[in-house]
Amino acid sequence: MTRIWPALVLFALVWLPLSAQSAELRGTGDLGIIIERASGSVVIVDTTRHAILGRVTGLGDLSHASAVFSRDQRYAYVFGRDGGLTKVDLLTATVAKRVMQSGNSIGGAISDDGQLVAVSNYEPGGVKVFNSTTLELVADIPATYGEKAEMSKTVGLVDAPGRKFVFSLYDAGEIWIADLSEPAAPQVRKLKNAGNQPYDALITGNGRHYIAGLFGEDGLAHVDLWSDQPEVRKILQGYGRGEQELPVYKMPHLEGWAQADELFILPAVGHHQLLAMDARTFEEVGRIDVHSQPVFAVARPDGRQVWVNFAHPDNDTIQVIDVPSLKVVHEFKPGPATLHMEFTPRGHEVWLSVRDSDKVYIYDTRTFEKVGELDAAKPSGIFFTARAGRTGL
Amino acid sequence: MTRIWPALVLFALVWLPLSAQSAELRGTGDLGIIIERASGSVVIVDTTRHAILGRVTGLGDLSHASAVFSRDQRYAYVFGRDGGLTKVDLLTATVAKRVMQSGNSIGGAISDDGQLVAVSNYEPGGVKVFNSTTLELVADIPATYGEKAEMSKTVGLVDAPGRKFVFSLYDAGEIWIADLSEPAAPQVRKLKNAGNQPYDALITGNGRHYIAGLFGEDGLAHVDLWSDQPEVRKILQGYGRGEQELPVYKMPHLEGWAQADELFILPAVGHHQLLAMDARTFEEVGRIDVHSQPVFAVARPDGRQVWVNFAHPDNDTIQVIDVPSLKVVHEFKPGPATLHMEFTPRGHEVWLSVRDSDKVYIYDTRTFEKVGELDAAKPSGIFFTARAGRTGL
Repeated sequence: MTRIWPALVLFALVWLPLSAQSAELRGTGDLGIIIERASGSVVIVDTTRHAILGRVTGLGDLSHASAVFSRDQRYAYVFGRDGGLTKVDLLTATVAKRVMQSGNSIGGAISDDGQLVAVSNYEPGGVKVFNSTTLELVADIPATYGEKAEMSKTVGLVDAPGRKFVFSLYDAGEIWIADLSEPAAPQVRKLKNAGNQPYDALITGNGRHYIAGLFGEDGLAHVDLWSDQPEVRKILQGYGRGEQELPVYKMPHLEGWAQADELFILPAVGHHQLLAMDARTFEEVGRIDVHSQPVFAVARPDGRQVWVNFAHPDNDTIQVIDVPSLKVVHEFKPGPATLHMEFTPRGHEVWLSVRDSDKVYIYDTRTFEKVGELDAAKPSGIFFTARAGRTGL
Repeated sequence: MTRIWPALVLFALVWLPLSAQSAELRGTGDLGIIIERASGSVVIVDTTRHAILGRVTGLGDLSHASAVFSRDQRYAYVFGRDGGLTKVDLLTATVAKRVMQSGNSIGGAISDDGQLVAVSNYEPGGVKVFNSTTLELVADIPATYGEKAEMSKTVGLVDAPGRKFVFSLYDAGEIWIADLSEPAAPQVRKLKNAGNQPYDALITGNGRHYIAGLFGEDGLAHVDLWSDQPEVRKILQGYGRGEQELPVYKMPHLEGWAQADELFILPAVGHHQLLAMDARTFEEVGRIDVHSQPVFAVARPDGRQVWVNFAHPDNDTIQVIDVPSLKVVHEFKPGPATLHMEFTPRGHEVWLSVRDSDKVYIYDTRTFEKVGELDAAKPSGIFFTARAGRTGL
């Protein structure tokens, strides 16, 4: 009998590392990450239990960091400001892969089939595309423009249906649509004269409309991706800093734009207002006075409410807009530097990062009651795994 | 040294069952189930690898069975025809819980916070609500109506934002909105005179519009759930069998209704046509001639395409509609009794169950090429875990 002990010990030792993982056997549909900008780390959260499951460090410069998720919702791809691309395993709270893919980057996207991760770079300008499993480079799309073949910063990178990515060239004033059906030979359609200095963009949830904000002029650049011959047209000609060049403390984020039923609700630039834009005609149909200069206006997933935060020094405040009436129905002060909001997939709760309190607060969106809180070090972006199933997130 | 062997053996034995599970450590965002109606079983599938992971048996009568998912996307709740409610663990391919909750049921839903599972019953008529973790009954809403307090069959049960469920009373011609904020004391708003014999219903993806089909008269019943005083109004007065009482081989499913950008595309009743309805006005704006009597018209998640299947004896065929042009752009014959379609979350692939071939086929929605196939015994409904994050699915 004693002769089997050594075999059993060996067996136990082999199984130990796996067993350590088996404690984590769980679904991944209710997970998320919170960016801890100052410490270059992320915390992994369980959105059902309002709990922190782990912390992953060593992700580099996470200023303006964002993330997308693998289609199995096990992995987060975190895009750092320093060109770092990190694949985080949410189940084991470890770094699965990490590459320094450029010198300076901003934002990324994952293809509709989950196979390709694309990153938008400032230096050198362009978009690099990676195999989502291995993080091996599979395509490099330099943002070369003009007669001198200069390189442009790229911004506003999003995924679109049909294994496409769409992005804007800040210096060139162009919008490019890249078809990665054959990753080794990307087909790039270049739309020129898109406007002066596109600085950010969004794609509608159905993947049809790409809209870029312009830093260098008023108005927005719009592309209907359903068109056989997509072209740029200017919409909301009055949108922007205007002739008087209002002081703008922070250019509003376009990712936050809220599509609420038949309207877009978007932050005005400089003004203490939101604009309501008809989602079919892209024409302004109303304005809503708010507390200060809005930064993010984010729709609850059902589009019934829009939650708004504001630029410094008024960034301690949140207002909630009721969409049918276009009225502010709730206002409160979560705390200093309330930077980001993320809704649960069907919108019953919203998570807010309050950077200068080192807290993430969780609210019931129907009663507005606080239902939970977590400690995090200088939290900024919050990203939930349900994004894996959504276009443009 | 030998004295530690027994402790190690004990350790190994304790860990063994868990270790068996640890082989399954994986994300759950790309899982799904396929209903095997004839054998009362489901197969669990991996939609990334096009693979079957396991089979779970003993689920009873799965005619017309449907399923919803826990918010962590680990569990499927399968609603059987015989009143059986089964919670299936997708990671271990086992039955986690099972209750016989009525004598005869059809369909179910899960609340926006994932805490409550509701089931729609024929016998006795009404809706029962269960704790999603334990499957303990937490609320019973009998569908009592009229002066004699008769019991109605309930149909068209969906979830709505704010921990609500909406359903229709077939015999009573009523639509009920149940607020389960306090499960022990459901608040039920009863809309009477909803129409003659509502037989099925849908809710729009944003949770705003509830639309019930009527078996006993033409037209559809519509409720705007954003209204402070929701009421039923009749839309599409010409929709139905009409005065000539066309032969109808199968009443079309409303769950399948396709919202494609600014339109709903829905199966006509009796006619070889689809109707296009404006998504704002709910008025008919066009018709599309198709192969035979349509059963399901399902939009690809981006709304660019609508896939249609047909009633017996033409149920071997699929047609694909291009939404901008409202034209049939593709037609093919997967095989006899092509019953159900399920798209991947961002629509790059579609899975079709071909019952009489005992096959599930997988197609690329852009190229229409077959990219995979699986064996399943008389497959019918296909349900992917991404539904957990969507309203009304």
